[in-house]
Amino acid sequence: MKLWQKNIDSLAAVHQFTVGNDRLLDEHLAQYDVLGSLAHIQMLQSVGLLTLQEFTLLQTALKSIYNDVTNGKFTISNDVEDVHSQIEYLLTEQLGDVGKKIHSARSRNDQVLVDLKMFYRAAIEKLVSDTQSLFQLLIKLSNQHQHHLLPGYTHLQLAMPSSFGLWFGAYAESFVDDMIALQAAYTVVNKNPLGSAAGYGSSFPINRTLTTQLLGFDDLHYNVVYAQMSRGKTERVLASAMANIAATLSKMCMDVCLFVNQQFNFISFPEQLTTGSSIMPHKKNPDVFELVRAHCNNIQALPQQVTLLTNNLPSGYQRDMQLLKMHIMPAFDQLQQCLQMMHLMLQHIEVTPNLLENEQYQYLFSVEAVNKLVLQGMPFRDAYKQIGTEIEQGAFSYSPVVHHTHEGSIGNLCNEQITAAMQQIVHKFNFDKVKIALQQLIS
Amino acid sequence: MKLWQKNIDSLAAVHQFTVGNDRLLDEHLAQYDVLGSLAHIQMLQSVGLLTLQEFTLLQTALKSIYNDVTNGKFTISNDVEDVHSQIEYLLTEQLGDVGKKIHSARSRNDQVLVDLKMFYRAAIEKLVSDTQSLFQLLIKLSNQHQHHLLPGYTHLQLAMPSSFGLWFGAYAESFVDDMIALQAAYTVVNKNPLGSAAGYGSSFPINRTLTTQLLGFDDLHYNVVYAQMSRGKTERVLASAMANIAATLSKMCMDVCLFVNQQFNFISFPEQLTTGSSIMPHKKNPDVFELVRAHCNNIQALPQQVTLLTNNLPSGYQRDMQLLKMHIMPAFDQLQQCLQMMHLMLQHIEVTPNLLENEQYQYLFSVEAVNKLVLQGMPFRDAYKQIGTEIEQGAFSYSPVVHHTHEGSIGNLCNEQITAAMQQIVHKFNFDKVKIALQQLIS
Amino acid sequence: MKLWQKNIDSLAAVHQFTVGNDRLLDEHLAQYDVLGSLAHIQMLQSVGLLTLQEFTLLQTALKSIYNDVTNGKFTISNDVEDVHSQIEYLLTEQLGDVGKKIHSARSRNDQVLVDLKMFYRAAIEKLVSDTQSLFQLLIKLSNQHQHHLLPGYTHLQLAMPSSFGLWFGAYAESFVDDMIALQAAYTVVNKNPLGSAAGYGSSFPINRTLTTQLLGFDDLHYNVVYAQMSRGKTERVLASAMANIAATLSKMCMDVCLFVNQQFNFISFPEQLTTGSSIMPHKKNPDVFELVRAHCNNIQALPQQVTLLTNNLPSGYQRDMQLLKMHIMPAFDQLQQCLQMMHLMLQHIEVTPNLLENEQYQYLFSVEAVNKLVLQGMPFRDAYKQIGTEIEQGAFSYSPVVHHTHEGSIGNLCNEQITAAMQQIVHKFNFDKVKIALQQLIS
Amino acid sequence: MKLWQKNIDSLAAVHQFTVGNDRLLDEHLAQYDVLGSLAHIQMLQSVGLLTLQEFTLLQTALKSIYNDVTNGKFTISNDVEDVHSQIEYLLTEQLGDVGKKIHSARSRNDQVLVDLKMFYRAAIEKLVSDTQSLFQLLIKLSNQHQHHLLPGYTHLQLAMPSSFGLWFGAYAESFVDDMIALQAAYTVVNKNPLGSAAGYGSSFPINRTLTTQLLGFDDLHYNVVYAQMSRGKTERVLASAMANIAATLSKMCMDVCLFVNQQFNFISFPEQLTTGSSIMPHKKNPDVFELVRAHCNNIQALPQQVTLLTNNLPSGYQRDMQLLKMHIMPAFDQLQQCLQMMHLMLQHIEVTPNLLENEQYQYLFSVEAVNKLVLQGMPFRDAYKQIGTEIEQGAFSYSPVVHHTHEGSIGNLCNEQITAAMQQIVHKFNFDKVKIALQQLIS
Repeated sequence: MKLWQKNIDSLAAVHQFTVGNDRLLDEHLAQYDVLGSLAHIQMLQSVGLLTLQEFTLLQTALKSIYNDVTNGKFTISNDVEDVHSQIEYLLTEQLGDVGKKIHSARSRNDQVLVDLKMFYRAAIEKLVSDTQSLFQLLIKLSNQHQHHLLPGYTHLQLAMPSSFGLWFGAYAESFVDDMIALQAAYTVVNKNPLGSAAGYGSSFPINRTLTTQLLGFDDLHYNVVYAQMSRGKTERVLASAMANIAATLSKMCMDVCLFVNQQFNFISFPEQLTTGSSIMPHKKNPDVFELVRAHCNNIQALPQQVTLLTNNLPSGYQRDMQLLKMHIMPAFDQLQQCLQMMHLMLQHIEVTPNLLENEQYQYLFSVEAVNKLVLQGMPFRDAYKQIGTEIEQGAFSYSPVVHHTHEGSIGNLCNEQITAAMQQIVHKFNFDKVKIALQQLIS
Repeated sequence: MKLWQKNIDSLAAVHQFTVGNDRLLDEHLAQYDVLGSLAHIQMLQSVGLLTLQEFTLLQTALKSIYNDVTNGKFTISNDVEDVHSQIEYLLTEQLGDVGKKIHSARSRNDQVLVDLKMFYRAAIEKLVSDTQSLFQLLIKLSNQHQHHLLPGYTHLQLAMPSSFGLWFGAYAESFVDDMIALQAAYTVVNKNPLGSAAGYGSSFPINRTLTTQLLGFDDLHYNVVYAQMSRGKTERVLASAMANIAATLSKMCMDVCLFVNQQFNFISFPEQLTTGSSIMPHKKNPDVFELVRAHCNNIQALPQQVTLLTNNLPSGYQRDMQLLKMHIMPAFDQLQQCLQMMHLMLQHIEVTPNLLENEQYQYLFSVEAVNKLVLQGMPFRDAYKQIGTEIEQGAFSYSPVVHHTHEGSIGNLCNEQITAAMQQIVHKFNFDKVKIALQQLIS
Repeated sequence: MKLWQKNIDSLAAVHQFTVGNDRLLDEHLAQYDVLGSLAHIQMLQSVGLLTLQEFTLLQTALKSIYNDVTNGKFTISNDVEDVHSQIEYLLTEQLGDVGKKIHSARSRNDQVLVDLKMFYRAAIEKLVSDTQSLFQLLIKLSNQHQHHLLPGYTHLQLAMPSSFGLWFGAYAESFVDDMIALQAAYTVVNKNPLGSAAGYGSSFPINRTLTTQLLGFDDLHYNVVYAQMSRGKTERVLASAMANIAATLSKMCMDVCLFVNQQFNFISFPEQLTTGSSIMPHKKNPDVFELVRAHCNNIQALPQQVTLLTNNLPSGYQRDMQLLKMHIMPAFDQLQQCLQMMHLMLQHIEVTPNLLENEQYQYLFSVEAVNKLVLQGMPFRDAYKQIGTEIEQGAFSYSPVVHHTHEGSIGNLCNEQITAAMQQIVHKFNFDKVKIALQQLIS
Repeated sequence: MKLWQKNIDSLAAVHQFTVGNDRLLDEHLAQYDVLGSLAHIQMLQSVGLLTLQEFTLLQTALKSIYNDVTNGKFTISNDVEDVHSQIEYLLTEQLGDVGKKIHSARSRNDQVLVDLKMFYRAAIEKLVSDTQSLFQLLIKLSNQHQHHLLPGYTHLQLAMPSSFGLWFGAYAESFVDDMIALQAAYTVVNKNPLGSAAGYGSSFPINRTLTTQLLGFDDLHYNVVYAQMSRGKTERVLASAMANIAATLSKMCMDVCLFVNQQFNFISFPEQLTTGSSIMPHKKNPDVFELVRAHCNNIQALPQQVTLLTNNLPSGYQRDMQLLKMHIMPAFDQLQQCLQMMHLMLQHIEVTPNLLENEQYQYLFSVEAVNKLVLQGMPFRDAYKQIGTEIEQGAFSYSPVVHHTHEGSIGNLCNEQITAAMQQIVHKFNFDKVKIALQQLIS
């Protein structure tokens, strides 16, 4: 066509624009693409769409590609559009027409869906593992520093005694709730879209229940239109769950940056883990915490990014979906890094002892003093007046000790119960079921 | 103080600004505030902080207030700051000093937390109920219209046959995943913060496990610092769960607005439910769907609003939290209205019959034709070439019938399995447990 | 129609849902709706679509309605949908068919557009005025406290000497940039959409340039399709401009909350303007600042709300637009309140004197000491080493005085230049032009 | 230190985490870093902080580095943290102690600020240029297709005649408003922060006005605390301005995807620019437009990302700022690509002729018919009734022709006025002033 003779560059620009950095991202999907294909061909053979011989040839070739992927020998050529095409190309090159038979009853739309589902499962498993490690460290620090008191603030004003036991433990318990939301996200993720083809199913007599079992999914996305529609929804639920974890980390970083400030001086870190200034000896810049905060605040923007990408689009596949990968996939890496950096830093946290013995904190104990009188039988109003008067007259005497005994208080942290709650929620993920299924596929 | 003698107006402005529209919102919390107090006094009596006589007096007075609330006789006076103060005022007016004893071992911080938790539980129950009704209608419509075909689009381009059975069913199944996320939100909501006081506990020997049982909570927010920190997190998780439901509704509205457009003309609604123009007889403006979409898109902004309100604040109560109510509470109403309006409208949807018999849709069947040849044994590549040639030569003949049999396809919608999945997730909410507990408190 | 006989309630529900709280919001638009109509009829008469007599009748009636509006006597009846219908109803009631002639060559779509444009202009004028007042107070405080030193932080770590002069002045200058963005928003707002009708113009030979002049607009939205498209864009640009102001306020509140904290104790406020605790004498809760921060953080979510409401909608009016009012209109009130509360509070700010004479701040002066040696001719590296050694050996002596002279530094705040920049940008709004035009319309 | 002997890996992890991908991003800043240094040394010499000889040595060395940068010979070594350190390293390597003198009176904080400001100026210039090209193409298409009619929709329902002239022209005019907001962003960007050092100025007698002139800035960020605070604000204003352009593009893409749909079939593109399917001859997938829409929707999330990164941080530099680069810098590239791809695609757009002659569109002309009778003198109400009756009786006859003459209507597009408005706003950027200034620095 004449119009295009001088427009080779334009076409190259269009091609470059539509492919974007997909090849790079797709390399992370390669192993899941092969696993999905292994399940697919086993199913095709079971319903008679492949002969046993064809199946065996394809299975052997796919297992070999799987080994290449895990050994870092797999790449996507520059002239190939995506991971699905690359694997098809390898199969066809080796097996001829048999290689092409793998594409019956599926399309790239459900193929990338199932790849992403498996990628997300694995990424969630890593998140859970890193969160658990950090959780355990926080519980350990909470127990270790149970009786190291800390000012408690309301309105950022000195209010009542708190403790490092409470502070570390609070963030540990925060992760329990974060895991509840992540577990729901995992449940949404862990459903099989394979067989929905381009989003409208096909006339092939396939067995989607079988591929569901083979790939270790808990259930199917039954309705094929919904299977396609799950793209975007899955990412949004996932992004929200990641944002929760990020919010917990971000808040803790904010506390840390405040607590290492010289006017607070509640905690410190070894010099090697902070940046400083040789002529301002007090300066220990908490760069790692600032950057964890920043990355986590960025992850908190992720749900909105996903929403904006997919909102107000009518149903059915649209190319916009492709960009979801670009945002979700790196976010997993970032969040994992943040969890690991927090773990590394908190391993070396140093807690300032005897903080509340400093007189500037004496009024923190005034509520304690009132309560003590109440417990001795004095009406609250009288107790309140008496302590108020003592303070006014400079006659307030106190001991910087607290006797809190109820559930979740300084003297009774309930870290066992919190740990049990964490174990219970983590147990529900049942990652082993997936591992066993996938192991069988490639063994 | 002299400074202030001429500044009465300034003080009034400050007062007005800090109270805002809290009184209005707090009236929705009144019944829960009373319930929380009923549990609190029973616990105080059990640990000896109230005598049996004091408890009985307080219980009788609180039950009477509860009746006033449910009978619409409760209001918050203009000179009283919030619901907690109003109820305290009523008790003290009636019982004198005994009325004040109710405040041992708690503060307004944990009181509002527990009120909100109970409010959210009730609001979630309504959401689940309305979602279920809409879900059931969608399943009914899906079954009813299983064999009414519809064009399926990819890239908004005509692609393959779909059906109204698939279309209605897809949105039904979408709600299943939405309920999974909402159930997680409910689990985070359904934990007891009462007894955490201002966020640092107290020296009173209270029994938080008892109030947890009395108020029908599944568990405690153990750590008192975390109990306070749950404010904001609870709302964020909730907002994200609401955003999922909103996204499902919004997407369906987008489809509806397209499908009632004259060029599509797939569905229609009775004139009374649309706005029109007497000189443009084709015009049936889908205002309800546009407004549902708009409200739902607005609810999708809610998670970000919650994030912005609470992000980068150090731990401990801060007054900023007060504004969370202002955004979350009306959103429940809006989302409920949207669910109900969708139910109302879809009850009257009219589906255009025999859509795909129109010749403009013939190419939708080309993939079907290829697949049919493949299933008859012809290699895919040859089948594809043959049909392509037929189309090119205008010789393509087809019958507008599809034979899809696999799970989730046009011929096998799996609506029973989808319904079972919905029942299973709804069952997990166990709202009855809450009802029984609260019933006992006030009976 | 039989279907509907038992569905009167449904229809009422639909009606209620579609009208929403529009009547309430529309009452704020009434005066602008009348002004728009006054300009419209003058133009209609000028092109022969109204006789002079008809024009005079309509003008008199409209001026009378205008007076009712400004005297608080105008309301929208419950059985009338919106402000446009109410005014039409009043005119027709009074003038019969002549009343209806006002609707030639416009539709409610461009009518609400022009009303909103005028509402926004007036709201912006108030914002500019309140921002200017706060700006002037900040400049005054900056000059007044020029030499009151304050620790300067990087990474929230004590770093170098700063001053209250710099701190107040920084927020003043921040508002200059905020006004630049607001001025651009005003320019986008200040264009006339009237005459674009339903978004496609009309065959009436109207003179849009004339209504542009009569209503004091700077220019037209020429293209009628774009005039309609400006809905949403106008609100987004406006929301972003408001978010800038909100961000400045929010940041200052964060500083204030930190600075009134007891460990910082840099500033304080009279007791009457804070909330406290009679037994914790140190406690001065900065509730106003926390709430300003919260409201302003909420306003920072507004641009995203606008985006979500309008994004991915094809061109042409859609009912979703209606909800824009619901978010934008109250935000103006909130932001104004925040500006005014800040002004009120900062009028009473008390600055802690001689802060940096406290020894804990000595190292802030180490960089000063190094620079002093450099200015005396010592190579930087040697100066740096000498001061470092002095600090290490406890021999570091310093005077808590700084001699900064360059533009924008402690000793040379450039508040005159900043004030001039503010005046220059405020001057560009040229609100008088609008006032004069509107005055002529109603006089 | 013992603790660290086995923790070399930890330290490496901390280092890797804090540097991130800064080196890559910083390479885009190199040329601006050199330019900033050239201005800085000229100023230092002018106030006596460098001898003429030192200045000349430094200037020669910097110009040589500048040449390396523009020739692609500059890279940042793996063991060097950022661009500022790399350039310092090169200077010191070559000139010894003189190389270090360049750092008097500035810090990396103001250095990166000034680099970013210059980078943004150049990026904005490119955006303006690409927007102008697309604008001109749209105006050309609008003029070319002025009389090609198109259905106009309200509520996505057929409403009134529109035209391709209006449609193309509307998006052109949309860019005019986008440029107004971008021009404000440019004004905020185009201020000089250099000399603010770490955010608190210094005791050096520098001349910030001189560097402002040398670097072609319009003005200073005077207050040094504000200069630092401008980080984040600058990016937010910029992100909002980019979001406007993105919104215009995204909306046009939504229209295009609808208009190329087979039921609309208003426009088409050459096969080479769409993806298709050889057995579905009607399929022309508009991938490029879907991806432009997706990228642009993503850019619309940018303002919120910036807000989340910086919100609720107290004043003063914090490391979080570093991540702003990571989001803003690639967004410029993406937006530019989108503008260029739109230009490329629209150059080849094909418009379906005589669309409205199809009978399905006849009712679009009913309003025309009513208006025509009104203009002939019939009262609106009667005209309306007459046409309504004709339609009802199937007697409605019309000619698919419109006679719209007012400003901005089908017959009078006012593209000259729109073009003049664009020229006027583009003129205000005055990019030449910057070019001349920078040219002088390096010549």
